[in-house]
Amino acid sequence: MKVLIAGIDGYLGWPLAQYLTQRGHVVAGIDALLRRQWVTEMGSDSAIPICSINDRLAGYEKCFGQELLFREGNLLDYKFLKESLAEFQPDAIVHFAEMPSAPYSMIDQEHSFFTQQNNVMGSLNLLWAIKEVCPETHLIKLGTMGEYGTPNLDIPEGFFEIEFRGRKDVLPFPRQAGSFYHWSKVHDSNNTMFACRIWGLKATDIMQGVVFGTRIDNDGGDPSLRTRLDFDQCFGTAINRFCCQAVIEHPLTVYGGGGQIRGFIPLRDSMQCVALVIENPPSMGEYRVFNQFDRTYTIEALASLVQVAASDLGINVVIQNYENPRTEMAKHHYNPDRNRLVELGYKPFGNIVGEIKIMLDDLSTWRERIIKHKQVLIPDIRWDGSRRPSRGIN
Amino acid sequence: MKVLIAGIDGYLGWPLAQYLTQRGHVVAGIDALLRRQWVTEMGSDSAIPICSINDRLAGYEKCFGQELLFREGNLLDYKFLKESLAEFQPDAIVHFAEMPSAPYSMIDQEHSFFTQQNNVMGSLNLLWAIKEVCPETHLIKLGTMGEYGTPNLDIPEGFFEIEFRGRKDVLPFPRQAGSFYHWSKVHDSNNTMFACRIWGLKATDIMQGVVFGTRIDNDGGDPSLRTRLDFDQCFGTAINRFCCQAVIEHPLTVYGGGGQIRGFIPLRDSMQCVALVIENPPSMGEYRVFNQFDRTYTIEALASLVQVAASDLGINVVIQNYENPRTEMAKHHYNPDRNRLVELGYKPFGNIVGEIKIMLDDLSTWRERIIKHKQVLIPDIRWDGSRRPSRGIN
Repeated sequence: MKVLIAGIDGYLGWPLAQYLTQRGHVVAGIDALLRRQWVTEMGSDSAIPICSINDRLAGYEKCFGQELLFREGNLLDYKFLKESLAEFQPDAIVHFAEMPSAPYSMIDQEHSFFTQQNNVMGSLNLLWAIKEVCPETHLIKLGTMGEYGTPNLDIPEGFFEIEFRGRKDVLPFPRQAGSFYHWSKVHDSNNTMFACRIWGLKATDIMQGVVFGTRIDNDGGDPSLRTRLDFDQCFGTAINRFCCQAVIEHPLTVYGGGGQIRGFIPLRDSMQCVALVIENPPSMGEYRVFNQFDRTYTIEALASLVQVAASDLGINVVIQNYENPRTEMAKHHYNPDRNRLVELGYKPFGNIVGEIKIMLDDLSTWRERIIKHKQVLIPDIRWDGSRRPSRGIN
Repeated sequence: MKVLIAGIDGYLGWPLAQYLTQRGHVVAGIDALLRRQWVTEMGSDSAIPICSINDRLAGYEKCFGQELLFREGNLLDYKFLKESLAEFQPDAIVHFAEMPSAPYSMIDQEHSFFTQQNNVMGSLNLLWAIKEVCPETHLIKLGTMGEYGTPNLDIPEGFFEIEFRGRKDVLPFPRQAGSFYHWSKVHDSNNTMFACRIWGLKATDIMQGVVFGTRIDNDGGDPSLRTRLDFDQCFGTAINRFCCQAVIEHPLTVYGGGGQIRGFIPLRDSMQCVALVIENPPSMGEYRVFNQFDRTYTIEALASLVQVAASDLGINVVIQNYENPRTEMAKHHYNPDRNRLVELGYKPFGNIVGEIKIMLDDLSTWRERIIKHKQVLIPDIRWDGSRRPSRGIN
């Protein structure tokens, strides 16, 4: 199939391009290259060095023996977007072109505005462009498990049947996101659901857990094919941060008590799931929601897993709790469904400790790069709009 | 109290300024004066002639013996917004500054983008400005009953307790809006709920039914104090359109079978409710939702009421069904709660036929103005993104 990846230069976009190519799909990409700027703005850099987009494209061509059509531009530029879709005529569009950080969206008015502008308005443009240019294209939109928040109920996949005052209906599961970023994803989900209903578009909305990992299988080995790995408070996700901290023997920074529970998925599983979604499209007019994660863990359990894996490799790290800069529940029920991807054939890699060891091994090569930016390891972006470094607590 | 009305030049904003002044509040206003442009863009004009904003302000001062602080500007201009709040230091902000039309938001990409940009991003700015300038200010945000859509359940006021797989929680009632405009209001509601939770702001989110009416009690009589009354497909709401059609003996344009049920509220009741909300603020950190309407009616029942009221005044009009340009359910359950405003003291005017007769009487003066723009009476904005005038059906 012809697959357009919006956000092809990102953490997920670049490995997905390779993974899909290996499965026989023809890949094109668009990107405004903003992720590189955001991480620089945070005073950080990818732990694993990545090449320029031009070198990436040249490396891809050398490795896979085919060209990858790339257009640099922004979803907010509607003319650019329509022209890109018209040029490539994709069977599927994977939408990874959103600003993906909760803390970044909470910094101040400017960052909050930027986040919802980029994500909500850009995604709205994408819906219109699909309708106008290629209405039969399957939209795979990346949402997040964070859209649901942490209700005191099990979390179904997007919709649930409920009874209220003796009447029944199947309704969207209520969303209780925890940052302006997470809400931007909820707004997108709602706009996408609506576009499918009124225009007959087809879309899969992926509520993805927190992704971790430094590589996928068969990533080719060429430096241009590596994906980025961030460890700053905005763009570094939990396990990725912990692994970067471990290889420089920095205490693992657990926010609050660490009793928060989230769904996690290895990068290689994420690729597998997105490919399954692409290869098993919905019907026209269908809007379907898949929860995409392997397992749930508390943050403190994850930190312990990283600590143990590091210890096996001869690295000794301590776990340190810090004041939680976020507003979130310290302890809560968390039991989300994830049946639909399994029904499509998703087979989890499963070995989280093995994955962490691969990560620690990969990252130890780049220890100096992490040390150079170690000032980004302690969070200071508070949900109340202030900036104060979190202090250690016990 | 000091009340800032954002959108003071609009259908609700201008009478609210007068109503609140009569109740002893000090009113200020901001407006970008866009409503006038939108109606012009639709090839229409207010049936009731309105004055320029300067003449309105002069008339207000003459009538009430006090000045009304007015600043022209847009919520998207964050600097302007912060300065306006800092200057007036309001106890309450009534947010009427959104683009209020479902069909306008469905015209094409440009209008859809404009709607969500203006509404979602403007309202997000307002939340930040309140947090930064006057965090104890009570935000009264105008949502719409249309946020809920038409689920097969009773509709509570914002939240409901549900049981799912044996567990219970109180959660936001799922929203199923019917246009990009209505979704923009949902997005706003979500952002507002979140701002109250993390920053401790206080807000009342009004899920208002369809407003109708040409005047409020004691509107002063001066031409500068009149409010606008639109009858085009975008800015004319159901009863207002029917009354304008009736006075020129144009068939009443019922979309589809007319079995759609909605909540309706007279303009004078809307003013009463908003005043009650202002005068009974929530606690800090509280986000509360009020459903604000008097009664529910089917569209065909409303058309019949207008037909009968017109007949009593010697005007004979027929009711004509037209192809429904919208995507909405033809017949459905509809039983929304509206207890919370009644508990605060809301007393409905109740006499809808009396209200319609007042409207017909007011509007008969401006028959020529309606006839001049009668080409706007047949809708042509379709929910599928096309423009085709609806044909009559039986």
